[in-house]
Amino acid sequence: MNLTDAEALDRADPLARYRDDFALPEGIIYLDGNSLGALPKAVVARIAQVVGEEWGQGLITSWNRYDWIDLPRRVGEKIAPLIGAAPGTVVVADSTSVNIFKLLSVALAVRPDRKVIVTEEGNFPTDVYMAGGLASLLGRGHQMRLAAAASLADAIREDTAVVLLTEVNYRTGAKLDMRALTERAHEAGALIIWDLCHSAGAIPVELTGANADFAVGCGYKFLNGGPGAPAFAYVAPRHLSGLRQPLQGWLGHAAPFEFAPDYWPAAGIDALRVGSPPILSMSALDAALDVYAGVEMGAVKAKADALFDLFTTEIRARCPGLDILTPSDPARRGSQINLRHPEAYAVMQALIARGVIGDFRQPDIIRLGLTPLYLRHADVFRAADILCQVIASGEWDQPGFKQRAKVV
Amino acid sequence: MNLTDAEALDRADPLARYRDDFALPEGIIYLDGNSLGALPKAVVARIAQVVGEEWGQGLITSWNRYDWIDLPRRVGEKIAPLIGAAPGTVVVADSTSVNIFKLLSVALAVRPDRKVIVTEEGNFPTDVYMAGGLASLLGRGHQMRLAAAASLADAIREDTAVVLLTEVNYRTGAKLDMRALTERAHEAGALIIWDLCHSAGAIPVELTGANADFAVGCGYKFLNGGPGAPAFAYVAPRHLSGLRQPLQGWLGHAAPFEFAPDYWPAAGIDALRVGSPPILSMSALDAALDVYAGVEMGAVKAKADALFDLFTTEIRARCPGLDILTPSDPARRGSQINLRHPEAYAVMQALIARGVIGDFRQPDIIRLGLTPLYLRHADVFRAADILCQVIASGEWDQPGFKQRAKVV
Repeated sequence: MNLTDAEALDRADPLARYRDDFALPEGIIYLDGNSLGALPKAVVARIAQVVGEEWGQGLITSWNRYDWIDLPRRVGEKIAPLIGAAPGTVVVADSTSVNIFKLLSVALAVRPDRKVIVTEEGNFPTDVYMAGGLASLLGRGHQMRLAAAASLADAIREDTAVVLLTEVNYRTGAKLDMRALTERAHEAGALIIWDLCHSAGAIPVELTGANADFAVGCGYKFLNGGPGAPAFAYVAPRHLSGLRQPLQGWLGHAAPFEFAPDYWPAAGIDALRVGSPPILSMSALDAALDVYAGVEMGAVKAKADALFDLFTTEIRARCPGLDILTPSDPARRGSQINLRHPEAYAVMQALIARGVIGDFRQPDIIRLGLTPLYLRHADVFRAADILCQVIASGEWDQPGFKQRAKVV
Repeated sequence: MNLTDAEALDRADPLARYRDDFALPEGIIYLDGNSLGALPKAVVARIAQVVGEEWGQGLITSWNRYDWIDLPRRVGEKIAPLIGAAPGTVVVADSTSVNIFKLLSVALAVRPDRKVIVTEEGNFPTDVYMAGGLASLLGRGHQMRLAAAASLADAIREDTAVVLLTEVNYRTGAKLDMRALTERAHEAGALIIWDLCHSAGAIPVELTGANADFAVGCGYKFLNGGPGAPAFAYVAPRHLSGLRQPLQGWLGHAAPFEFAPDYWPAAGIDALRVGSPPILSMSALDAALDVYAGVEMGAVKAKADALFDLFTTEIRARCPGLDILTPSDPARRGSQINLRHPEAYAVMQALIARGVIGDFRQPDIIRLGLTPLYLRHADVFRAADILCQVIASGEWDQPGFKQRAKVV
């Protein structure tokens, strides 16, 4: 494989035309769409419209005129097809963390006699922290049971109330088997919550097909909703009837503008709403999701796999010392490439200085996101080339690159 | 008083120059800044910069380069002087509702033996709903005690764990005595949480002077942060040490980017952070707050009082049948004028058709917000004139104005 071969692949790529939907900086190869997705061009015009026209000119009347009040549902409906969810089962609200709190509360209440929450050892910290915070608040002896990915099925037992899993691991890119683990949870009489932060918009997700109970996910990675974009929450149709969660805010009320003294939850998924939605941030996510209209997630996965193979083939041939953490089996991974290097932080700084942006994860992980809608085969080829040059030349081994920044 | 007199007052108004900081629609008199503040011109440029440059060009590196990660604290520091709070005691995060949940959890944990939460009858519903949701979740027999404003001091007793009050009532504009009620709460051994949604940026607030324990408030009313702008939370310095709340998200961790398995709350006010902040919405609030730089809240109150007097004098003279709900004593009200009319909804629709925007609140309330930074005496004079014309002519009494919209 050489650059000419990679460029030929780009010419034949059925997703190539989507790159033009994004405003990408010149001279940068962006392999961090798994942390913050690139800016869709449509967002620029939409935000200018929301600020200048809807807020500036429409003022308070825009809650009706532009239907801001139902934006959380409308955006939810755009996410639903990307995650295999039926209409009316997804709403956008709050952050992933807060949505975990709501859904875990709901799930624990279904199994009041059971005290164990099963999760993966090495799950993204906020999932574990939020579960721990809820357990402490309840003070009813709920405990976390952490198990390695391979032992999860065994860890789900008759004492398990809820299983809380992230489908794609943030540090390895490994994907759990949603269908098998959901089946195992149900077999044990437990409910299951899937965190789709590294799945939504990245790989085909089949919440309905897997019979999942609940799911959450963020809007700012593969969905390209912008920094800190609001998160989403999914509830299976069988759990929607009578849905009630403890963060009983006025916008989750059945009739918020009646200002009734008692709380009656809205019917269905709207019961997960709490306070006023951040309209600017939510409108950016709304506009960003239009890029996905007509995109088939199977095609996204096929290109991601091609990019993964291209990159790892180059790495194995040219800098074989780099340890590739992400599974080579396409069915067992998300849309990232995670590599291990003892000086991962410094290597990433050297890469950034060369225009290749990815991220570092503690303690020794280089994490590169594959976003097929705006990455070209040639970009990935160049990135592999630059990475191997950096490793070979030792240019990362300089004091400037070894200083830790606050966030990476 | 006639229009010429009102215009003379505008020429002498020391706050008159701030009006030019806002992008206001032509031909509209906006008396709804207490629901959604007008657009500060600086927000337009700031949001274009955040979207195009920071997100679009800086991508993931902007979390460091533009210090997005500390934006919740920086915005909190701008709000602090407006509410009489010391540096390091205010953070911007989530919604008012979610912040009530956090702080009420903290406060209830301080008084585990007490089971009563005192609030005002007719407090804004979300405050009562959120408290009810927390009480149900805890399942430890916490109960709400609702009392009329005049009976609040008596309702705070030795069984009271927490007092949860909104300083300015959303339906009457009446202001509670923060200092006296805080003292009464402490005397009874209770803690107090103040909801400042209709206070922050509207009237001088002295959280430190009143010795308040906790406070929350929204960013989208008098602070002009835009639709659904993030909310703020205040914790008195004496409660900051060891502060821990149940929504233990990763960004409230002492070292979020260490991705440690155990949760250790950040020192101080940062322990109230949960998930990723919505940077677009929060940046709008940040830019909007710059309008307040150098503004003295006493001057804002003085002008609000002058506007109130001007409006009510006209109403009493020209349409005396209208019932003015808001106290005439300036020390006992916020920055609104609440009127009662049996067909309040239809009257408000007729006013909007004439370019005077305020809002309707169930069941019979016309609510007008006084925002001295962008309202002129002449605007308020004209609004009173138009309101009395509408009432006198009966032009509100038409089917088109009597149909209820979804949100008002």
